[in-house]
Amino acid sequence: MESLELFLADCQHQVDTKLDQLLPSEADSPARLYQALRYSCLAPGKRIRPALTLATAAAFSGTMDSRRESECAIYPACAIELIHTYSLIHDDLPAMDDDDLRRGIPTCHKAFDEATAILAGDALQSFAFEILSQADLINVQSRLEMINTLAIASGARGMVAGQAIDLAAVGKVLTLEALEVMHLYKTGALIEASVVMGALAANQHDPEVLGHLRSFARSIGLAFQVQDDILDVESSTETLGKRQGSDLANNKPTYTSLLGLTGAKDKRDQLLNLATQALRNLPNTDTRRLQQLSEYIISRNK
Amino acid sequence: MESLELFLADCQHQVDTKLDQLLPSEADSPARLYQALRYSCLAPGKRIRPALTLATAAAFSGTMDSRRESECAIYPACAIELIHTYSLIHDDLPAMDDDDLRRGIPTCHKAFDEATAILAGDALQSFAFEILSQADLINVQSRLEMINTLAIASGARGMVAGQAIDLAAVGKVLTLEALEVMHLYKTGALIEASVVMGALAANQHDPEVLGHLRSFARSIGLAFQVQDDILDVESSTETLGKRQGSDLANNKPTYTSLLGLTGAKDKRDQLLNLATQALRNLPNTDTRRLQQLSEYIISRNK
Repeated sequence: MESLELFLADCQHQVDTKLDQLLPSEADSPARLYQALRYSCLAPGKRIRPALTLATAAAFSGTMDSRRESECAIYPACAIELIHTYSLIHDDLPAMDDDDLRRGIPTCHKAFDEATAILAGDALQSFAFEILSQADLINVQSRLEMINTLAIASGARGMVAGQAIDLAAVGKVLTLEALEVMHLYKTGALIEASVVMGALAANQHDPEVLGHLRSFARSIGLAFQVQDDILDVESSTETLGKRQGSDLANNKPTYTSLLGLTGAKDKRDQLLNLATQALRNLPNTDTRRLQQLSEYIISRNK
Repeated sequence: MESLELFLADCQHQVDTKLDQLLPSEADSPARLYQALRYSCLAPGKRIRPALTLATAAAFSGTMDSRRESECAIYPACAIELIHTYSLIHDDLPAMDDDDLRRGIPTCHKAFDEATAILAGDALQSFAFEILSQADLINVQSRLEMINTLAIASGARGMVAGQAIDLAAVGKVLTLEALEVMHLYKTGALIEASVVMGALAANQHDPEVLGHLRSFARSIGLAFQVQDDILDVESSTETLGKRQGSDLANNKPTYTSLLGLTGAKDKRDQLLNLATQALRNLPNTDTRRLQQLSEYIISRNK
C-alpha cells in the first residue's frame, strides 16, 4: 500500500487533471468568466473531499488503489470539489464573510469582481451536476443517486442551511449543541456526500453499509471542523493560506471559544474514535485508507 | 380545447401548489432562508417556462391536457422555474443589475439582505436538481437526460455565460449578431431546456424531434427577449412589475436601441414565423398549444 502522502498527491493530480480537461477554455468567450472558473478550481487545494470519494470507492474494490474504481469515482470526486469551490467563492463575498485570501491567493471577487465571482460560483454548481449526469462509466441508477445525494447535501437542507445558520450566529453565544448542528450542515453534509458518492461509484447501495459510512463521515466532518478551529488559533496566515484568527475577528462561535484549546483537542480525539468505530462496522471492506485519512484530517496543520 | 388563459392559469396553479408543497416550511430552521425561498418562488410569476414544459409534454400525449403527462412534467416544470427564480435573485443583486423591484414586490436582497439572497439563489439551484433526481414517476434515463439538459442550459455554456456576456456589454455598442448570441445564452438556453424537458417527460427521445423543438424554442426565446425590449420602452413600471426603462438607464444594448421600435417589432414577427415553421416539422404531434403560447409570448404586455 502506497503511503498516504503519495495517495493524496495522486488524488490531487487526478482531480486537477480532470478538472483542467473538463472546464471551459480561457480562449473561449466569455473569457473573464472562464478565467475565473479556472482560477478558483485549479488553485492549489488539499482536495480532501475528492480523496474521501476516491478512497471510499477503492475500499469497496478490494484492491485499494484500483484503477477501475477511480475511473468511475473521479467524476463524483470532481463534482464534490466543484460544489466545495463554488461555496468558498460565495462564502468569501463581501456580503458574506468578506475574505481577501483563499488557498494562498486573492479570493475570486478580489482577483476578478463581485459579479464575476457570483456567476462563477453559480456556474460551478451547475457544472457539478452536468458532470455527474454524463459520467457514463457509472450505471444510470448510481448516477441518479449521486445527483440526489449531492443536491440534498448542497442545498437548503444541507450546506446552504449551514451557511445561513452560521451568518445568523455571528456575534451570538451558541451552545455546543447548536454549534454542532451548524457544522453538521455547513461542512458535514458535503463530507458525508463525498463518502456516500464514493460508495455509489463502486456500486455499493446497501442501506446498512451506507448508514455506517454516513456515521463515519459525520464524525470526521465534525473533527475536521474542530481541527479548523484549533488551527485558526494555533497556526499562521502564511501556513493556512487564509487569514489566521478570522473566526475570532468575525466574532464567530468556535469549538475553541466554547471548550478552550485543550477541550477542543479532546473533542476532536473523541470524534476520531467514533469514526474508527463506524469503519469497524463495515464487513469485507478494506478501510485502512479511510482510517489514515481520518487521522490526517485531525493532524493536518493547514 | 380549453382557452390559453385557462391553460396558463392552470399551469400557474399546478406549479404554485407543487412548489408550495416541495419547499421547506418557514416554521423550520433556518427560518430566514426558508422565508426567502418561499418569498421569491411563490411571488406571482407568469410561469411561462413551466407552461412550455407542460404544453410540450401534452403535445406528445395526443390529448393535449392529459393528466398523466402533467403528473410527470410538473417536476421539470418546477425545476425550470426554480432555476429561473434563482437567476432573477442573483441578477437583481447590487453587484449585478442592482434592481429593487421584481414581480411587483421588492427584490429578495431588498426584502431580506444580500447574504440571504445569495444563499437563497444557491439553494434554489440545488433544489431544481434534487427535484428532478427524485421524480420517480419518470423513468431513470429520462430523468438523467433532463438533469443533463438543465445543467448545461443553466451553466457556464448556457444562462450564466449569457449573464457574463450581458455584464461585459454594459455601455458597449453591440452588433445585432452579438446581441443575439447573448440572448441565446441568457434567456434562450433555459427556454430551450423547458421545451426539451417537456418532451423527455413524455418519453420523447427522437433526436430529430428534439432538434425541431430546439429550433422552435430558440425562435420563441429570442422573440420573448425582443418583446421584453419593446415592453421596456412601451410599458409602465406598474404593469411590468419591474422598473420600466431600466435597460436604457443601465445603458444596456437592446433590440429597440439597435433596430428602432418598428424594426424590433418586425424582428419579433419574423421569429414567430420561424417558430411556427419548426412546429410544422413535427409529425403526429398536436402543437396547437405551443403555437398559442408563441403568439402569447409576443403579444403579452408584461
